[in-house]
Amino acid sequence: MKTGIVALLTDFGLSDHYVGVVKSVILARAPHVQIVDISHGVSPQNIDQAGYLVWASYKYFPEGTIFVCVVDPGVGSHRRIICAAGHGYVFLAPDNGLLKYVFGEIKHPEVYAVTEKKYFLKNVSKTFHGRDVFASVAGFLASGLEPSKLGKRITERIPSERFAAIGPTRKEVKGRIIHVDRFGNLITNVQPRITQGRPGKRIPFLKHFSVQIYSTQKIINHLYATYDDAPDNDPFMVLGSSGLLEISIKSGSAAAVLGVGPGERITLFRKD
Amino acid sequence: MKTGIVALLTDFGLSDHYVGVVKSVILARAPHVQIVDISHGVSPQNIDQAGYLVWASYKYFPEGTIFVCVVDPGVGSHRRIICAAGHGYVFLAPDNGLLKYVFGEIKHPEVYAVTEKKYFLKNVSKTFHGRDVFASVAGFLASGLEPSKLGKRITERIPSERFAAIGPTRKEVKGRIIHVDRFGNLITNVQPRITQGRPGKRIPFLKHFSVQIYSTQKIINHLYATYDDAPDNDPFMVLGSSGLLEISIKSGSAAAVLGVGPGERITLFRKD
Amino acid sequence: MKTGIVALLTDFGLSDHYVGVVKSVILARAPHVQIVDISHGVSPQNIDQAGYLVWASYKYFPEGTIFVCVVDPGVGSHRRIICAAGHGYVFLAPDNGLLKYVFGEIKHPEVYAVTEKKYFLKNVSKTFHGRDVFASVAGFLASGLEPSKLGKRITERIPSERFAAIGPTRKEVKGRIIHVDRFGNLITNVQPRITQGRPGKRIPFLKHFSVQIYSTQKIINHLYATYDDAPDNDPFMVLGSSGLLEISIKSGSAAAVLGVGPGERITLFRKD
Repeated sequence: MKTGIVALLTDFGLSDHYVGVVKSVILARAPHVQIVDISHGVSPQNIDQAGYLVWASYKYFPEGTIFVCVVDPGVGSHRRIICAAGHGYVFLAPDNGLLKYVFGEIKHPEVYAVTEKKYFLKNVSKTFHGRDVFASVAGFLASGLEPSKLGKRITERIPSERFAAIGPTRKEVKGRIIHVDRFGNLITNVQPRITQGRPGKRIPFLKHFSVQIYSTQKIINHLYATYDDAPDNDPFMVLGSSGLLEISIKSGSAAAVLGVGPGERITLFRKD
Repeated sequence: MKTGIVALLTDFGLSDHYVGVVKSVILARAPHVQIVDISHGVSPQNIDQAGYLVWASYKYFPEGTIFVCVVDPGVGSHRRIICAAGHGYVFLAPDNGLLKYVFGEIKHPEVYAVTEKKYFLKNVSKTFHGRDVFASVAGFLASGLEPSKLGKRITERIPSERFAAIGPTRKEVKGRIIHVDRFGNLITNVQPRITQGRPGKRIPFLKHFSVQIYSTQKIINHLYATYDDAPDNDPFMVLGSSGLLEISIKSGSAAAVLGVGPGERITLFRKD
Repeated sequence: MKTGIVALLTDFGLSDHYVGVVKSVILARAPHVQIVDISHGVSPQNIDQAGYLVWASYKYFPEGTIFVCVVDPGVGSHRRIICAAGHGYVFLAPDNGLLKYVFGEIKHPEVYAVTEKKYFLKNVSKTFHGRDVFASVAGFLASGLEPSKLGKRITERIPSERFAAIGPTRKEVKGRIIHVDRFGNLITNVQPRITQGRPGKRIPFLKHFSVQIYSTQKIINHLYATYDDAPDNDPFMVLGSSGLLEISIKSGSAAAVLGVGPGERITLFRKD
């Protein structure tokens, strides 16, 4: 019988055997677990993007889910691997900022350094800890191991990041593009506060704002509730499905039309 | 214990978290279900292609399978979501033509409008009904909910489409390319009638036909039973694995060599 | 209850319905099996690459795993399909060399010709044996069928290939690039003998070697243990996670910078 879910997020892509081997190591230790792919298409070594994707996903999984997040440019070096428990979830990731948005939301997680070699594969390579450390540890966790068995408790604060807040009384807020999705939607790190945890909530104050893209100076004035409401070929703001502000174009790619991508700076400002 | 299969077909791609989150919502409601991806690589908002893919797939799944098909340009608008039951299968899709080929084959499906909000997520976003409506409803269906509980029965006929028939006595048939696969094979909507449900069946009359591509006027004369039989670098007709006529090139991409894609019109005509 | 794992390796890609349909046929016969994708991104009809991927993966799966490998340019022709059992694993593949590296490692496998039509789908197409033969047979194997029931035992030796050995006493070894991974790492067929089955093992003698790329005459002199140790933008040798020699660039694609790909010849030679 399935005893739980392990969710995977990596930059391994799907053309190699890397993801399949990670799954084989997990299943060898926890044969009845459900493995769910969040994504393996994170841009190679893009920690910020991975941070957004795990944050936007975790809250929809049932309690008890174990998240294995491997975007790990420091693999084989002395960077730390951490296991964090909070809100009923368990997260396994390199200590490189990948969990910063999750830690901005989960209060007082228990965090452990992952150092107990007996839960790793016998021969740990220098270049594939996703298989030799993360997958093996995840398999043990999925079959009941307590995170506290993995190593010492970390008591210092792990870096966290909150999204740029915007509310009815703000005049201006600076932010950036943190992800471009398959449809070319530009996901920003700007979070209308009233929408927290309520993605269907109306945000009437947002129609008084425009957004300017830094590198091209382009200003976008319109806000629509759905893609269907918007005219063709004209970029607009929309409250995205994660509760963050997005810039979109109906039936097209905002990223391609506006010529911008992840990291781009933006400014939201009141029109009146 | 696994209690059934939910099969997914979307245009969400695999680089974002969208598919993973859909699965998390399903598994939160039906922990022991098997989730099978048909494809998430449908071209953004290409309803015709999605219609072909679900039609070519559904009959190989065991009875009881629930198909969740989300190619949904009208998301957040007043377009209807439908749940159709027939031949032992259940289909969940926007009412936008996505199921037209399935409805061309399944006689008298029971169709319901999906309106009962108690089976949706609590906060329904305007832009991600795949998660907030489709996945949640699929989770309830997979754990035993009857389709009739989802909303009112729809009694008017839902649009269906049959493939362009060709048989030994036809002189000419007009059709179109409905899909280009990974190998560059051009799948047409022309269905030699004798092959229905019998993809291994021989179709001797087809060798009397040629196919002409509309935009380039190119004519293809040869028919082969297997890729191996064909010469290199010469486009030919082949009876595809779904029982539809395909245009292929051995060890190459017919789409690239012929310079055509989905939507292209074709004419089959008798040579003699 | 899950009764085992079926691992899939194909060149079908993920944009079509092909992989989903293969899974549906397996699950119709073995409802509780875990299906794991090794990769479906093998370059179309690239048997050598598929051979590397299954070899690099199989040993991490638990005993009893059934590997279904379909890279099959000869589909529909008289090429043989084989089922091999050894080291507790079962492999199903066309008899086209796909399993050559596996057979280089597994001693005395039992090999059977897959000919018993009663384990195939009723209507076998000429172009999709992945569905009609491989998936159906895999479903029967996963639900307990013995490989010996599939057809006659093959007693002649099936072609195998060992990797190019390099040890402390060698002066020179010739090899080739067999795979380029998502990160642009060039995986060679050169295997430092001391590392067999021990990917974390140190290989001090390797620092006395340089590698030359045949077509560009480019020589790479440096060896690093991890990506993190290496300087930016300078190609280097690294012992890859499968125990084969790789050529990499930190924070970049060695394939792109060096302009080489699969099939490229290389020479390893002692510097002193």
